Parts: sequence; structure tokens; C-alpha cells
Amino acid sequence: MDTFFTDEYFMRIALSEAKEAYDKGEIPVGAIVVANNQIIAKSHNLTELLHDVTAHAEIQAISSAANYLNAKYLKNCTLFVTLEPCQMCAGALYWSQITKVVYGASDDKRGYKAIGGQLHPKTEVVYGVLEQECTALMKSFFENKRK
Amino acid sequence: MDTFFTDEYFMRIALSEAKEAYDKGEIPVGAIVVANNQIIAKSHNLTELLHDVTAHAEIQAISSAANYLNAKYLKNCTLFVTLEPCQMCAGALYWSQITKVVYGASDDKRGYKAIGGQLHPKTEVVYGVLEQECTALMKSFFENKRK
Repeated sequence: MDTFFTDEYFMRIALSEAKEAYDKGEIPVGAIVVANNQIIAKSHNLTELLHDVTAHAEIQAISSAANYLNAKYLKNCTLFVTLEPCQMCAGALYWSQITKVVYGASDDKRGYKAIGGQLHPKTEVVYGVLEQECTALMKSFFENKRK
Repeated sequence: MDTFFTDEYFMRIALSEAKEAYDKGEIPVGAIVVANNQIIAKSHNLTELLHDVTAHAEIQAISSAANYLNAKYLKNCTLFVTLEPCQMCAGALYWSQITKVVYGASDDKRGYKAIGGQLHPKTEVVYGVLEQECTALMKSFFENKRK
């Protein structure tokens, strides 16, 4: 079972969420929250549709997972997201004390590492999972936008 | 007119929102968004009630103001908040490109300045407005909690 539920397995589901955002003309970022190998939240970026800068995939996923758990701390949960979180989302993850964050592509301009943000010291971070696919989707989106 | 609508005037309204949070057992932070001297959003921290770490006063105020304006960028808007924004809220304010942020009390532990977060370079920042009252409300809350 453990070899089936790999980080790549779950990132592929986050990537399918990102593709849904892409199809709606949203910057293609997708996220899921997993607890005990069960997906308890799925979301994708909806900032354009909702006219709301806070509607990043991660913020929605954190709120949704907390609602599912009826608890504000996401203990024993992992967030999979296709792009490195920005400072806003890193801050939300910090407050959630989430156990693990896995992201695909790095964001050297607006990612929390570049800005100087922080995740919670207890949070394990893994990155570069399906990086090429996550990056390719973003590149395709911005190339199409420039056309 | 301009002498009536001072930063202190609006911060006092944010402070009344913070007191509403206090009365609900929430960490007492209140926020309002003002455009052309008109209040277009009012909110207070609801993280306990909603079991949601993203339910800070600022995040709710940003979403609410954007909903009112039907636009994701808060141009010509000012956010008044009783406490220095955390990195999550600073990130949301960054994305909103809000024109001005006014805060009361500083937060030397979890404020965006201590964490290393950033507001948008175009955003004007004013702080220390009704600082003593904003700080006193926070102190009273945590002193009561320890009892």
C-alpha cells in the first residue's frame, strides 16, 4: 500500500486540479490535502473567477480541510501543491501547523523562500515532485497569455 | 471633511471590531477597508469560531472589499487594522496592491516585519495609530486567558 500512495501519486492529482484552473483561464495551480492516504480537500486557483486575491489553491485547501476535520490545526496532514507557496499561503500553512508540505515547481520570484517567508518549524518540506510537468503547465499558460 | 476622517477616526472603528472579537473569545483583531472615506468592509478575527486559521480580520476584509468592488485589486483603498499583519495577511495585501495600510499595535513576534514578509512596494504604510488602545486590548485578552 505504501508504495502505491507515493508523493508522485498525490502530486498527479494536484496537477489535475491545476489543469482545471488552466482550462478556466486561471493561473494553473492545484492543491490537495491528504490525511492517512485519504484526500480530504481538493482545490485550484480561482482568483480571477472570484475577483479575490486570497483564492489561491492552498488557502482554499486549508480552509476546506479544516472544515472537514472540524479543527483548525492540520495535524497528520500533507498538502500537495503544484507550485511553491507564496508568502500568503506559507503564512496560512504556518498557522495550520500542517505536518508536511510537498510542492512541485519552484517560484523564484514570488515563492515564500524568495520573499523571506516561513513555514512552521515542525513542518516537513519536500519539493521538486513532478517538477517538470508542474513547470511546463505554468509556462504553457503564460506563453498562451502573451499570444 | 478631511480633518474629520482621520486615521484615528477609522482606527477607532477597527478597534470596535476588535472588541467584538474579544467578546467572542477570539484574539481581538479588527479591520476595515475604506475607499473615498466610505467603509466598504468590516471584519474581526474568527479563527476559533470557524476553526480556520485563514479567518484573520484582514483576509476577510480583503475578500469582502474585493467582493464589494467586484475587482481583485484594491486600488484607492486603505486597510485599517488594529495589529500589524502577519506574513499571511501581508501576502494577501501584497497581491491586492492596496494603496495604503494603517495598523495600530506592532507584533514583534508574528508580524510580517519580524518574519521577513513584504507588502507591495506601491503600498503606503502607517503604524502606531491608537497604538496604546490596540495593545491594551491584546494584553487584556491574553492576561484573562492565563487566569
